[in-house]
Amino acid sequence: MEEDPRIADLGFARVDVDRARRTGDAEVVYGAGKTPGQVIAILRTLHERHPERAVLATRLSEEALAQVATSLPEANVDAVARAATLGPFPEARGTVAVVSAGTSDAPVAAEAALSIRVHGAAADVIEDVGVAGLHRLLAVRDRLEAADCLVVVAGMEGALPSVVGGLVGTPIVAVPTSVGYGASFGGIAALLAMLNSCAPGITVVNIDNGFGAGVFAARVARRAAPVP
Amino acid sequence: MEEDPRIADLGFARVDVDRARRTGDAEVVYGAGKTPGQVIAILRTLHERHPERAVLATRLSEEALAQVATSLPEANVDAVARAATLGPFPEARGTVAVVSAGTSDAPVAAEAALSIRVHGAAADVIEDVGVAGLHRLLAVRDRLEAADCLVVVAGMEGALPSVVGGLVGTPIVAVPTSVGYGASFGGIAALLAMLNSCAPGITVVNIDNGFGAGVFAARVARRAAPVP
Amino acid sequence: MEEDPRIADLGFARVDVDRARRTGDAEVVYGAGKTPGQVIAILRTLHERHPERAVLATRLSEEALAQVATSLPEANVDAVARAATLGPFPEARGTVAVVSAGTSDAPVAAEAALSIRVHGAAADVIEDVGVAGLHRLLAVRDRLEAADCLVVVAGMEGALPSVVGGLVGTPIVAVPTSVGYGASFGGIAALLAMLNSCAPGITVVNIDNGFGAGVFAARVARRAAPVP
Amino acid sequence: MEEDPRIADLGFARVDVDRARRTGDAEVVYGAGKTPGQVIAILRTLHERHPERAVLATRLSEEALAQVATSLPEANVDAVARAATLGPFPEARGTVAVVSAGTSDAPVAAEAALSIRVHGAAADVIEDVGVAGLHRLLAVRDRLEAADCLVVVAGMEGALPSVVGGLVGTPIVAVPTSVGYGASFGGIAALLAMLNSCAPGITVVNIDNGFGAGVFAARVARRAAPVP
Amino acid sequence: MEEDPRIADLGFARVDVDRARRTGDAEVVYGAGKTPGQVIAILRTLHERHPERAVLATRLSEEALAQVATSLPEANVDAVARAATLGPFPEARGTVAVVSAGTSDAPVAAEAALSIRVHGAAADVIEDVGVAGLHRLLAVRDRLEAADCLVVVAGMEGALPSVVGGLVGTPIVAVPTSVGYGASFGGIAALLAMLNSCAPGITVVNIDNGFGAGVFAARVARRAAPVP
Amino acid sequence: MEEDPRIADLGFARVDVDRARRTGDAEVVYGAGKTPGQVIAILRTLHERHPERAVLATRLSEEALAQVATSLPEANVDAVARAATLGPFPEARGTVAVVSAGTSDAPVAAEAALSIRVHGAAADVIEDVGVAGLHRLLAVRDRLEAADCLVVVAGMEGALPSVVGGLVGTPIVAVPTSVGYGASFGGIAALLAMLNSCAPGITVVNIDNGFGAGVFAARVARRAAPVP
Amino acid sequence: MEEDPRIADLGFARVDVDRARRTGDAEVVYGAGKTPGQVIAILRTLHERHPERAVLATRLSEEALAQVATSLPEANVDAVARAATLGPFPEARGTVAVVSAGTSDAPVAAEAALSIRVHGAAADVIEDVGVAGLHRLLAVRDRLEAADCLVVVAGMEGALPSVVGGLVGTPIVAVPTSVGYGASFGGIAALLAMLNSCAPGITVVNIDNGFGAGVFAARVARRAAPVP
Amino acid sequence: MEEDPRIADLGFARVDVDRARRTGDAEVVYGAGKTPGQVIAILRTLHERHPERAVLATRLSEEALAQVATSLPEANVDAVARAATLGPFPEARGTVAVVSAGTSDAPVAAEAALSIRVHGAAADVIEDVGVAGLHRLLAVRDRLEAADCLVVVAGMEGALPSVVGGLVGTPIVAVPTSVGYGASFGGIAALLAMLNSCAPGITVVNIDNGFGAGVFAARVARRAAPVP
Repeated sequence: MEEDPRIADLGFARVDVDRARRTGDAEVVYGAGKTPGQVIAILRTLHERHPERAVLATRLSEEALAQVATSLPEANVDAVARAATLGPFPEARGTVAVVSAGTSDAPVAAEAALSIRVHGAAADVIEDVGVAGLHRLLAVRDRLEAADCLVVVAGMEGALPSVVGGLVGTPIVAVPTSVGYGASFGGIAALLAMLNSCAPGITVVNIDNGFGAGVFAARVARRAAPVP
Repeated sequence: MEEDPRIADLGFARVDVDRARRTGDAEVVYGAGKTPGQVIAILRTLHERHPERAVLATRLSEEALAQVATSLPEANVDAVARAATLGPFPEARGTVAVVSAGTSDAPVAAEAALSIRVHGAAADVIEDVGVAGLHRLLAVRDRLEAADCLVVVAGMEGALPSVVGGLVGTPIVAVPTSVGYGASFGGIAALLAMLNSCAPGITVVNIDNGFGAGVFAARVARRAAPVP
Repeated sequence: MEEDPRIADLGFARVDVDRARRTGDAEVVYGAGKTPGQVIAILRTLHERHPERAVLATRLSEEALAQVATSLPEANVDAVARAATLGPFPEARGTVAVVSAGTSDAPVAAEAALSIRVHGAAADVIEDVGVAGLHRLLAVRDRLEAADCLVVVAGMEGALPSVVGGLVGTPIVAVPTSVGYGASFGGIAALLAMLNSCAPGITVVNIDNGFGAGVFAARVARRAAPVP
Repeated sequence: MEEDPRIADLGFARVDVDRARRTGDAEVVYGAGKTPGQVIAILRTLHERHPERAVLATRLSEEALAQVATSLPEANVDAVARAATLGPFPEARGTVAVVSAGTSDAPVAAEAALSIRVHGAAADVIEDVGVAGLHRLLAVRDRLEAADCLVVVAGMEGALPSVVGGLVGTPIVAVPTSVGYGASFGGIAALLAMLNSCAPGITVVNIDNGFGAGVFAARVARRAAPVP
Repeated sequence: MEEDPRIADLGFARVDVDRARRTGDAEVVYGAGKTPGQVIAILRTLHERHPERAVLATRLSEEALAQVATSLPEANVDAVARAATLGPFPEARGTVAVVSAGTSDAPVAAEAALSIRVHGAAADVIEDVGVAGLHRLLAVRDRLEAADCLVVVAGMEGALPSVVGGLVGTPIVAVPTSVGYGASFGGIAALLAMLNSCAPGITVVNIDNGFGAGVFAARVARRAAPVP
Repeated sequence: MEEDPRIADLGFARVDVDRARRTGDAEVVYGAGKTPGQVIAILRTLHERHPERAVLATRLSEEALAQVATSLPEANVDAVARAATLGPFPEARGTVAVVSAGTSDAPVAAEAALSIRVHGAAADVIEDVGVAGLHRLLAVRDRLEAADCLVVVAGMEGALPSVVGGLVGTPIVAVPTSVGYGASFGGIAALLAMLNSCAPGITVVNIDNGFGAGVFAARVARRAAPVP
Repeated sequence: MEEDPRIADLGFARVDVDRARRTGDAEVVYGAGKTPGQVIAILRTLHERHPERAVLATRLSEEALAQVATSLPEANVDAVARAATLGPFPEARGTVAVVSAGTSDAPVAAEAALSIRVHGAAADVIEDVGVAGLHRLLAVRDRLEAADCLVVVAGMEGALPSVVGGLVGTPIVAVPTSVGYGASFGGIAALLAMLNSCAPGITVVNIDNGFGAGVFAARVARRAAPVP
Repeated sequence: MEEDPRIADLGFARVDVDRARRTGDAEVVYGAGKTPGQVIAILRTLHERHPERAVLATRLSEEALAQVATSLPEANVDAVARAATLGPFPEARGTVAVVSAGTSDAPVAAEAALSIRVHGAAADVIEDVGVAGLHRLLAVRDRLEAADCLVVVAGMEGALPSVVGGLVGTPIVAVPTSVGYGASFGGIAALLAMLNSCAPGITVVNIDNGFGAGVFAARVARRAAPVP
């Protein structure tokens, strides 16, 4: 097993360097629970195998963000998204609009936007358009319709995807966030609301999972705008 | 205890005939788990004590609705609300708008509307204005603003109160309904959404509790429109 | 409000006949809780407004299926999916593969397949390829890669989407089903597994919601195969 | 969108300065997750737009409370409520009695009382009248009846609203608090008790949501005491 | 094992006929899931071993109640409690007051009262004294104080034990009932309220478990009134 | 209200100094969330009103325990129970055996034992007799039978009360503890096990509530051993 | 795919006839949700492929049990286990003791015992040895020690595996059953208790899953008693 | 009780030194909640009674690991497993393969492997073979088949045991880990997936309970490879 070229064995991890061949997208470093040194080592390994396109590390601690900036000066560190990339972004094919309800949802929206760009689509970020002030949302209807896919981010009661889903027919990936208190249960209230949306054409990812929504939406957008 | 004039002992129940004196509103027959005969007996007792105003029985089975219609021909039987009243409605003071999201929410909205009328306010019923078609809601904005209190009824993701709460400043009582399937948990998803609404000025009652919302809203409306 | 041309008021329901203009897809009849007569009336109304493309009714009872077959002989009744359509299917653009784990998942898979066809894409149905016999799944890898979007249906532990997501890069919509017993909680175990998948690029819909998955996936497939 | 006069774009947030026109009450700063500098900036913006009436910031950290006191010396800082206001309180119309069960409920009761005053009603605070010593509650019955609306705050088993609801007919907004331990689940036990109250005329807000209860109750009280 | 005199092997069950020697109280027939014939056979066996004192069968179906009445004419059948006894009640030592909140709680209260009598104490039944009408409860304070133990039965918000616990110092066993709807979860709301009571000296049994409360309370009462 | 002799108003709390008259037992200081100074002030107030018997403060922080020891040198500080008493213990009437499963349950058992002594009964403490080593439990059967009431403390699977309940007929108050990890949910697993015990005659208190179990059990024991 | 010899395509199901080769045990018919005709067809197919050893169908309805008995007279129908087998039992290697707590657990214990025999081990069934009468369990200690693996079946508080695990060192598979009421949640209370057992060496299967426990235990027993 | 030779009373704990005689395996120190001094004292006591075989302490804090290394230099400290042993490992009989899905599962896998060795079997550790890269798992199929028992460790969606269970017939003990975020609920999602696995022959232990899985699997492996 040790010599399988599809696996890069770093001792503390066995990286799946074959994933891009199978699925079109390289493996990503999930930073939670990893030391800064481990994050940097895996990023370097992935970058060596995929020098032509950006590789991504998410869920980085303050300490990891700082060490990545120091050790990998060519890396792109996104403090809001708590993530970093190494290597050039691929050319964008198709556009994903990232729509968020409130200012507290910004980190999740930023993680989604960065993931979209790493995975080869453009991101159009539209923030602070929650349902308690509908005029803010109605004003951007054109951008919602122009996108190839939507990532809609909301905490608390999670109503935004339903309202968007009644306005336009673009495919919607809803991301519940852990914003809230009391009986919001760290995002469960928003997650349930999104799963039970009365508007059709809405799918959902896990709480705060901007990365997963971004990967999925980029894949949809890329297919909608094939290489000429 | 047996001779306490504040209690009417029917053998199978000891009715609190003092409640109207203490709280301004008579006791109500909660029909679930009671036989048609018991419902009729309590309705008669309450009517004797309060001949000048309608008394109410809720959550009646098909059988109870039929027997009430037969045994108490002067009663008003509301099949949609699964409820019945005996005696004249009091003069209405103030108005409550009852707003519901979908056709499946009709029984809860009807229970709320009837409870409002029994408790001395007018009910303006606005149905089928869910958030997946916002134009239906925006078209009735004037009626929402004209009311003294709103009862907003919705199942599934329960987003309607948040949207209404962003449009007008009228006090809102939100009623989650058990409409839905899968991870809606018999109305829990809608209940949580309403408790976590991003719009201020919203309070919530139990799932399918049109009666409780109606009593509360009628009290608010009556106070907003005092007797000249 | 009564004369709004965007609403067809049938007395018991106010149908949103404007939805196709806004979102590209017509409203659908959700049959649960509606009488056969109501289902037929709404189907007819929607068909009149959209004669050129099939309209859909889902979650039909045995009785409703039978009455639709009798009253609307031109309707297409799908007993496995518990659904019916009226009008010709639109020309298919793009393909969605519907992959299911076990025989008990068949009704949900059928609802998804029918919804895909009604919403303008082709459906390639692949059944009974659960993870306890991986050879069945590996044998259809080409069909998974050829599709523009995947709908993956599974109950019990809901592991199938994760395994598929490790094999191909096609966007995956996972549908948990209520198949199971004991601590499966009517599909909650599968739902949670899918939300927590270790494979990226997976989104989820509510339990047993083949319809929602189908609408979403058809929209993705249509965008991937635009009209020449 | 950038020039919409209904929105004040501060870079990190887009404040809905149109809300007072739509709903009669200005937007409020929800301090959780915001830096002290952000809180102060939004407070200043709201104060500029609404100089004639107090604007409110809630859920402030110790640090934010201190910095508000330093940077905005004209602000009113309420340490128990963990909140601050800027600008003069509006003239009070109507009265809300804030009733709490135990000393641990004081912060939530204080947040409710401050929110009531900011939103234009008077607050009559009645503390430490839990149901395990009924004489304390019976002694204040007159004040309960004199109010236009009640906010009833309780943790643990959340029984106080039911007992109050049996004594008087004033509309009751119940606020569960996260006071308790073991199987109280951070206030869920009290929340469920209040939703299931056997006394009619009770509505509920989210756990610890003194602000929401205060806004709602002030709106009810204002309507009950219209301007002459 | 077959010849162990402490066990009566009936084929379908191995009855623990040694329990009275160990614990002072004979085994009881839990009727749920047993056929009428099985119930009767076990009752007879227990009666033969303990002819001097009543033996008890609980949770009997309609059919089992009828067959017991026919096959064991000397049995005492209690239709409200859905239970039956065979043999003479023991002489009562001490008194347990059984206090219930509403008429729907009657079956659980009746099961508790019968269990108390079978286990050798007197039962003083006080019904329909819910907290929404406190005067009914205050009127019976003397009986609460005179008892050796209290069994307090309530559904919905389960507030009654807390109020009783603030009035008297008698030990209280609280019994939540499955009375309610919506977010009452079949008695969970009342169970949590009772576990979180702010009044000390309250213990709790499972939902609808009048039998368990009765056995426990009878043991307490017997000890408080020893044989002279 | 201010001059009600039944209430001692300390500004930050209104102490119910009438409780001993009503229920036989004085109010207790629940230390969680209170400052050391508040704890000491309430202890002093209660001690002045009840100089002849110990008063109790529970759930004290490390800091509060230290300050009580310094400021009230005559107080009895119990570090294991995290509690303190002021004044002489009353003469003990009756005995409660406190039985615990493991060493981690010691703080809850100690709180129960101290509460028993403060409330006028003797405590016989039996530790570390979990069901995975039955010989330890069988060896103390005499002490279990000799007690007037049992308090049985266990975490993890909470099986100890069921086994004890099969051995002796003494009334059992079960206390689940938050000892455990994974799917023990902070004591919920043990709580559910105890509520569902197959042995009759068992009641339950909230998780970690040694105090409540102690008060209840002392009341039972006192009644079983009346003053001659 | 259609001609894959590892799959038997019956139209309504694609049976994995390769499983015995891969795992040593043939596929089993899970009868829930299948028609009697489907059950019989799959049983026949499996029997043809594996004529030398019994094949199994579980979770059969009353109707399916009857039709199997009629259509497959050579089948062995076990009414208690709600299961049927076709073909001769394999020679038993090793022994599994199936231990159950109460009479209501009999169906699950029977399903386990039958599954053990089908999968090649002997089953020693020990019923009705719940923890509320320990003498019944202690009397069979020799049989517990003699077995190669134990399947311990219990509902309600699920304490039996912990007690057995303290007595002997035989590997224990615990099976929670849905026996109970109130806060037992259909077996969840027992499941949690078993997962949190204080005795080491215990593993758990899903609620009522006697089949899964039987397969696992038979595999363990077979390995402990290899063919000479 | 004090002189029972089966118990070693250390004051703060009463160690069950009879367990090895009853069950074949000595008691283990569960380090959570114990001071380093207590851990060392119990380890020493157990080592004195069982000098011929290693004794184990698990769930050790950083501080405890350090003090054990200092005070017991002959101890074996395993930092990844957060555990320590004292005394020589017994000769291994049989082999358990420990299979884990991701790098974050390493501590649980290490605890399992160490527990297996302490309890007398060999451990073959196979890491980082999650289902999103099936080739990694298929490459080690021979080792899975060669083992006497498998311990399969996975977090997130917990799919690995189902896939392994479809590949080989070796008995599988599944260990869910608390790896994940959002709606993974600290391992509950993986736990439910494992309990609901579609592959037969899988049992489950509590979340993160590598120790329990290891003890069980070692017992199975030892029986499969008896002493000649």
